Amino acid sequence: MKYELYYWPSSQGRGEFVRLALEEAGADYIDIARRSAAGREAVARMLAARRSATPPFAPPILKAGNVVVSHAANILQFLGPRLRLAPKAEAGRLWVHGLQLTMTDFVKEVHDTHHPIATSRYYEEQKKEAKLYTREFLKIRAPKYLGYFEDVLRRNGGKHLAGRSLTYVDLSLFQIVTGMRYAFPKTMKKLEKDIPLSVKLRDAVAARPNIKAYLASPRRIDFNENGIFRNYPELEK
Amino acid sequence: MKYELYYWPSSQGRGEFVRLALEEAGADYIDIARRSAAGREAVARMLAARRSATPPFAPPILKAGNVVVSHAANILQFLGPRLRLAPKAEAGRLWVHGLQLTMTDFVKEVHDTHHPIATSRYYEEQKKEAKLYTREFLKIRAPKYLGYFEDVLRRNGGKHLAGRSLTYVDLSLFQIVTGMRYAFPKTMKKLEKDIPLSVKLRDAVAARPNIKAYLASPRRIDFNENGIFRNYPELEK
Repeated sequence: MKYELYYWPSSQGRGEFVRLALEEAGADYIDIARRSAAGREAVARMLAARRSATPPFAPPILKAGNVVVSHAANILQFLGPRLRLAPKAEAGRLWVHGLQLTMTDFVKEVHDTHHPIATSRYYEEQKKEAKLYTREFLKIRAPKYLGYFEDVLRRNGGKHLAGRSLTYVDLSLFQIVTGMRYAFPKTMKKLEKDIPLSVKLRDAVAARPNIKAYLASPRRIDFNENGIFRNYPELEK
Repeated sequence: MKYELYYWPSSQGRGEFVRLALEEAGADYIDIARRSAAGREAVARMLAARRSATPPFAPPILKAGNVVVSHAANILQFLGPRLRLAPKAEAGRLWVHGLQLTMTDFVKEVHDTHHPIATSRYYEEQKKEAKLYTREFLKIRAPKYLGYFEDVLRRNGGKHLAGRSLTYVDLSLFQIVTGMRYAFPKTMKKLEKDIPLSVKLRDAVAARPNIKAYLASPRRIDFNENGIFRNYPELEK
């Protein structure tokens, strides 16, 4: 199966959770918008999708033959069994999907550290509110979510979030810990002491051959201030 | 199958999307926290879940035999085929789940109209920011989301969001339009002119025998200022 990923070309964003799964599995995929200018137009066309009865609201969108799936977590639950990155039984699949949806909620809160008032406005226009939001986020929300994933890891034996082998939520936790380090290095230095298993899992994922090759390749977009995880040092003060 | 719903007893909240599906289908279920004081403790116990390998992050949580599912959208995709409220084919199920996830995103933005800075603080402590957030929300985000669902309805023939019969996302759109009316009556009076099909669907859902009986029963919690849809007139000014 040849997969087509439709996502913005200028940041990791929510598409990165899908890219990591495709890369780990060595799947045959095209990152449509990053191929060419024509590819970028194809993403816009997919969103306009005037003839489609099932128009997606926003990227990321995955095309697999005639199937079109949107929302990163939905794409991952679709890909999971196909890429051998999800448990086989229904209860297990529902559990990892629930974990991914909790990560989705966390990622939205990370996004809101720089855009608490309006997505349609620049960060510079909501800097004061961003500082207020980020203070609460780093004090209460980040420890709560990261502590939760650490707890799930511990209850499951310490190596994986679910079952006895790698699933897509392990890859997503890698992305979250790595992104949090980029965005909030000072805070993470402290928080990481309380999440040793998550840090170990992060390192183990980074060392997997396919992920290691991907991270070193031009296919991995660098973290930057167009993405979800942004490094604005003034927010961490 | 007897279902157990674990959710807070004092507001409709995110649990309401699950209740509507269970009620429409005439399913055998217990709303654990609303049964008794012991039930409310059971929800807290479920969250603590010290012995569980798969502890949920937050309610709503559904128990069905040995299966435990959390996140409203995840619960609905689990219940959908069982209650005959979802398409049969995989592509159709992924499509309605994607729609429900877009509704989840919208509902989070509705929540943030009264809590833009911190969930851990009172509305009264973030009123100024709530006004700024709500202004953008009502001007840009609400029309964008509601217009999207209207567009999906139109492309699908006007009566249902997906396929030729009722699915759980139709029930969820009922809840969204009804909730928006409660929270932002002045704005909705204007916006509803642009979403006639959604309003018609809302009315059709409200008139379905099981939903009509549910809405008239004490099982339906009234909208209130503990919930997601809150009526704070100062925000609409």
